[in-house]
Amino acid sequence: MHFLGEFLGYLAGISTAVCFLPQTIKTIKTKDVGGLSFWSYLIYNIGILSWILYGVYLGSLQMMLFNAISLVFAGTILFMIVSGKKNKVNK
Amino acid sequence: MHFLGEFLGYLAGISTAVCFLPQTIKTIKTKDVGGLSFWSYLIYNIGILSWILYGVYLGSLQMMLFNAISLVFAGTILFMIVSGKKNKVNK
Repeated sequence: MHFLGEFLGYLAGISTAVCFLPQTIKTIKTKDVGGLSFWSYLIYNIGILSWILYGVYLGSLQMMLFNAISLVFAGTILFMIVSGKKNKVNK
Repeated sequence: MHFLGEFLGYLAGISTAVCFLPQTIKTIKTKDVGGLSFWSYLIYNIGILSWILYGVYLGSLQMMLFNAISLVFAGTILFMIVSGKKNKVNK
């Protein structure tokens, strides 16, 4: 049970850290941001940034590290949504 | 510092719990799943499910609760991506 519990913690951390890598690649390739929610990614970025700062507060390197990886992808997607919608307005 | 730290923890938990509510509403309304990454939402769902089970292992009600809320939205989006792509193939 101890091994399974620790394994679940790592699986959870790694999964949520890298989950938006495929979305980032897809969005960069297709530039299709029409179906993506600006508000969802804004709130997600705020949430991830808060997890990093909470990790600093708790002194948890894992929390800072895993969430920093996630922030790179989520931040890129948010940036592409904002610049994509702006281009649409300009056209 | 203590108050700010605790506040960040709640802000982080609530943000990542509700962040995919706007995406869920948008996807249900528009049915536009073309820009959404199947792999990202599959990995995200696995990650969130692992957080819930890790919460069970640690006995953390907050971890179970916040991640269960997130799983409802992420699961709905994943379901819509799968059924949306299937419809596209059938048409």
